[in-house]
Amino acid sequence: MRRNIKTTVEYLGTRYSGFQPQKGQPGRPTVQGELEKALSLILGHGVRINGAGRTDAGVHAFGQVVNFETPSKMSGERLLRSANAVLPPDIAVKAVEDVSPEFDARRSAVWREYHYYILNRPHRSVFFDPLCHFVAPPLDVEAMGKAASALLGRHDFSAFCSSEGLRQLGPDRTAERTVLEIACGPSEAIVWAGEPLEGLITLRVRAHAFLHNMVRVMAGTLLWVGRGRLGAADVVEILASKDRRRAGPTAPAKGLTLVRIHY
Amino acid sequence: MRRNIKTTVEYLGTRYSGFQPQKGQPGRPTVQGELEKALSLILGHGVRINGAGRTDAGVHAFGQVVNFETPSKMSGERLLRSANAVLPPDIAVKAVEDVSPEFDARRSAVWREYHYYILNRPHRSVFFDPLCHFVAPPLDVEAMGKAASALLGRHDFSAFCSSEGLRQLGPDRTAERTVLEIACGPSEAIVWAGEPLEGLITLRVRAHAFLHNMVRVMAGTLLWVGRGRLGAADVVEILASKDRRRAGPTAPAKGLTLVRIHY
Repeated sequence: MRRNIKTTVEYLGTRYSGFQPQKGQPGRPTVQGELEKALSLILGHGVRINGAGRTDAGVHAFGQVVNFETPSKMSGERLLRSANAVLPPDIAVKAVEDVSPEFDARRSAVWREYHYYILNRPHRSVFFDPLCHFVAPPLDVEAMGKAASALLGRHDFSAFCSSEGLRQLGPDRTAERTVLEIACGPSEAIVWAGEPLEGLITLRVRAHAFLHNMVRVMAGTLLWVGRGRLGAADVVEILASKDRRRAGPTAPAKGLTLVRIHY
Repeated sequence: MRRNIKTTVEYLGTRYSGFQPQKGQPGRPTVQGELEKALSLILGHGVRINGAGRTDAGVHAFGQVVNFETPSKMSGERLLRSANAVLPPDIAVKAVEDVSPEFDARRSAVWREYHYYILNRPHRSVFFDPLCHFVAPPLDVEAMGKAASALLGRHDFSAFCSSEGLRQLGPDRTAERTVLEIACGPSEAIVWAGEPLEGLITLRVRAHAFLHNMVRVMAGTLLWVGRGRLGAADVVEILASKDRRRAGPTAPAKGLTLVRIHY
């Protein structure tokens, strides 16, 4: 009997060309590749995993979810321990669980939550620099929060999708997505030594599904709002224009973390 | 007129042979050396800094404090920005402040607080591994907490001091120190993506001054308690014995962070 196994994974994306192989990143390892290599080694058969979120090169995950099938009888606990013993130090398996055959990490997901971290203060964080996009000039956080709320709900997010993403979508599939929750403001999402990271601004977005680069283009556009280059009303117009050229730049990958996936 | 400048600094100790040069670590840079090089470059004269806590090789700081003198009229804000522009990415200046000529970062300190982080769960943290000592087998945290409280107050801490530290102390200086606060237990001192680091145990110690390796020997001894090798009563006896050989091993440097210094 084949088991279907759900696995929660965290990784630092810094060293990877993304979850899956991506164009223009040959030779760099992928998170999926490392996971499949580790699981195949432990289980003694080729393992093909199915990931819920196809994070880009440099993007981190706190709670990525994958599933895979195996005829092995190995306990979840032993699988977790063995996987972590052979995985590289920047990928870890956090939880392993038997699920029904119908469970599909990608298709069964109800929503995904991403955080984009902006560190807005005069100096970098010596420890959290790999998880944050550092911006020294003071940003208008209140304006960013207002502008973010304009992106709530169901919209055609073409203006917030990479041209590559739109191409992959093709003419027949919609660029409409539903943002279930969005907030941008000061946050205590990161703490070290009992002290919330000073100057941290978090863009938190929850949606059933995202377009390619959607959160990073949102972050880049909100950064323009924070600098006074755009107002909240402009963001409404950019959204309506469906024109990627009107939105802000794609913010750096390292500020983005796939936080959790809800089933 | 010479100014006396108080500076708060954070660093990742991983790459350094400690705050000051240490025996047996030639060739590796020191935090003090990097700070003096950066400040001398910016201020155009040789700068000698005086640090409050002489952290060991591999120990981190969240709120180290140093002071130095300069005839320069450069504003604190510009000094902070310039220092961070030339310092290596694992050292950052967090605050700069003019203080009275009497202020001495080391001698004026009222208390110092250290955290020792133990990550007790089946798998490492991909991101926080450099700040934590990882221990997979479940520890008896309650016993560790009880044992820690036996170390509160004024005692001769010879059993919790490296032999090198005792040698440096000499026969005339006391190994008595006053632990003002001590707690060991589950903690939310580290958070990523809004979630407290699962399995984190923090040993938090506050004292006017510490002996060499004092917190790390405390941590190593409490780890023995957590594993059931020692009981809380044993810790009282070890303290009374003043015998370093009876205490546990010196826990790894990377779990230790100098959190703050109070004046």
